[in-house]
Amino acid sequence: MKIVLGSGVIALFGVLVGTHFWINFLVKRQYGQFVREDGPQSHATKRGTPTMGGIVIIFMVVAAYTISHIVLWEPPRASSVLLLALLVATGFLGFLDDWAKISRQNSSGISPRAKIIGQVVIGVAFAYLSLGFPDDRGQSPASDKISFVRDIDWLRLGTIGAIIWMTFLITAYSNAVNLTDGLDGLATGASCIVFAAFSLISIWQRNQWCGMESSDDALCYEVRNPYDMAAISVALAAACFGFLWWNARPAKIFLGDTGSLALGASMAGLSIYTRTELLLVILGALFVLEAASVTLQVSYFKLSHGKRIFKMAPLHHHFELMGWDEITVVIRFWIICGIAAATAFGVFYAEWVVMA
Amino acid sequence: MKIVLGSGVIALFGVLVGTHFWINFLVKRQYGQFVREDGPQSHATKRGTPTMGGIVIIFMVVAAYTISHIVLWEPPRASSVLLLALLVATGFLGFLDDWAKISRQNSSGISPRAKIIGQVVIGVAFAYLSLGFPDDRGQSPASDKISFVRDIDWLRLGTIGAIIWMTFLITAYSNAVNLTDGLDGLATGASCIVFAAFSLISIWQRNQWCGMESSDDALCYEVRNPYDMAAISVALAAACFGFLWWNARPAKIFLGDTGSLALGASMAGLSIYTRTELLLVILGALFVLEAASVTLQVSYFKLSHGKRIFKMAPLHHHFELMGWDEITVVIRFWIICGIAAATAFGVFYAEWVVMA
Repeated sequence: MKIVLGSGVIALFGVLVGTHFWINFLVKRQYGQFVREDGPQSHATKRGTPTMGGIVIIFMVVAAYTISHIVLWEPPRASSVLLLALLVATGFLGFLDDWAKISRQNSSGISPRAKIIGQVVIGVAFAYLSLGFPDDRGQSPASDKISFVRDIDWLRLGTIGAIIWMTFLITAYSNAVNLTDGLDGLATGASCIVFAAFSLISIWQRNQWCGMESSDDALCYEVRNPYDMAAISVALAAACFGFLWWNARPAKIFLGDTGSLALGASMAGLSIYTRTELLLVILGALFVLEAASVTLQVSYFKLSHGKRIFKMAPLHHHFELMGWDEITVVIRFWIICGIAAATAFGVFYAEWVVMA
Repeated sequence: MKIVLGSGVIALFGVLVGTHFWINFLVKRQYGQFVREDGPQSHATKRGTPTMGGIVIIFMVVAAYTISHIVLWEPPRASSVLLLALLVATGFLGFLDDWAKISRQNSSGISPRAKIIGQVVIGVAFAYLSLGFPDDRGQSPASDKISFVRDIDWLRLGTIGAIIWMTFLITAYSNAVNLTDGLDGLATGASCIVFAAFSLISIWQRNQWCGMESSDDALCYEVRNPYDMAAISVALAAACFGFLWWNARPAKIFLGDTGSLALGASMAGLSIYTRTELLLVILGALFVLEAASVTLQVSYFKLSHGKRIFKMAPLHHHFELMGWDEITVVIRFWIICGIAAATAFGVFYAEWVVMA
């Protein structure tokens, strides 16, 4: 548990302190965010708030993992290195977008097509590499099966299918978190809850791991390096928790695409590595609903030639326009996310209890 | 785990739905809160918000415990019944205060002396009863020793001393939560975190319990009914989480003294029963700091003939007057409470690891 605790403490305090300096740096250089012009009117006041806060999160999570492993003299594991690479790569893609917005002084960023191509390239590379690196038990970080609370044996996709599936997950959740990141603290708090749930799942998997010598039953979990997954999940949860100090209303800094793409991709990556891909639909229900609201709104608008289902998409703007205070929407969405995460962990745990 | 999960689900959804009806009932009868006249000016707008939301929490926690035990056909335990009685009794005392405020249409309530006398009477009765009811291993719900992460053998107080100590804890934490309950959602969210930590502590104690047949080592925990403690802690955490839906800014309802006294007393009660009395100073550091800020302010004001340490006490008003937004104070205080709870659980767990 030392590595897990150490990672959490370093990430938490690293982000708490680091973000303070990062905000000062950005403000001094006048790197402010240009808020999207199609949001509610009341958001116009947010113009000028620094963005790219995700850089601090990414940097501190990588630092937390590295420092805790060096201090405790543990070797890095293939699965952790791949996950951290995914975090950094999607963060860099988001950074290009944020940077384009700042340097061009408008809210358009890089083109949607370029963003999707970037996500697909990263997703394919991550998926391909994740199917390699077998450990001494032959387990790769990812499997070629679709998983719910563990791999589903009859849903084997083959190598190509698995790469497409994983790329889809990474792209989908990256964009879902990106869409959710529209109110102060909303995406950060919800991500914190999701990563906390992944921490519990990984710790549980580690205690019931097939790779342990004492393990003999059929209920053990076939995953690679559950202990390292726990360290990364805890570091991500702690980093988001610390970032909330600065990101909650009134936000002194935003995650930016740097943060939201990286956090979303990490969720997908963790679900792939912990074999809980379909469970993430429950666990991250808030993000799924936000993304679905945009898809529904746009599709219906086109089909009906101009009608709308929601007053505004993504979903959080709909409730704002219904008259809910911004902070009411944020806290209630956190509560919904908390209930979803508790339900998902309940399902995960119940499967083990029922089968035992 | 079924009782623990069941209690949590019933309490969560009971409070989410129940509070809605309770607010409607109170609004229809025009039972609004009179906000203290010595708070910041900006709080004047809160006049008229319904209070006594704690009644829903208390009712649903008792219901969750009762229903889950009846459905799963488990007998109630002495320690749980005593804890629930403490919850109801301190809630009733708070209700008398809230009711006096409403019926007299001012913010004074019952006299401070009457409130303290009520708390002491309840505390003494609870403490005295808690030293009885030994189980088949001779463990009473409470012990006559002071505890940190377990009972400290050389800090035996004797019966009279233990009753005074427990009464002090109950009175102190009741009032600390009451003082903290000055910003929308602050006390509710922080209480949720504290009870969540108690849930983890009780579940851990249950897994390493001296009362289990398989238990043989010296590191087991000597407590009574850890499993029932977990059920009550989870129900309290879930109830607070659900209440936050309505209590977060802009609050549609307040906890009232009904809620804050009952939640504070329950924290003290849980720390007594789980043998973590001194750990609660870390776990509930936020409440301790809030209460300390008032004591310091008042003492210094008297000693210095009119000087102040804080712009205003309790602490949360100090930060408000420093220019922090109300919601910023609330969320940052939650974060502090979360760090405190994680630290406390870390200390609790570390003791076990180091001794093992």
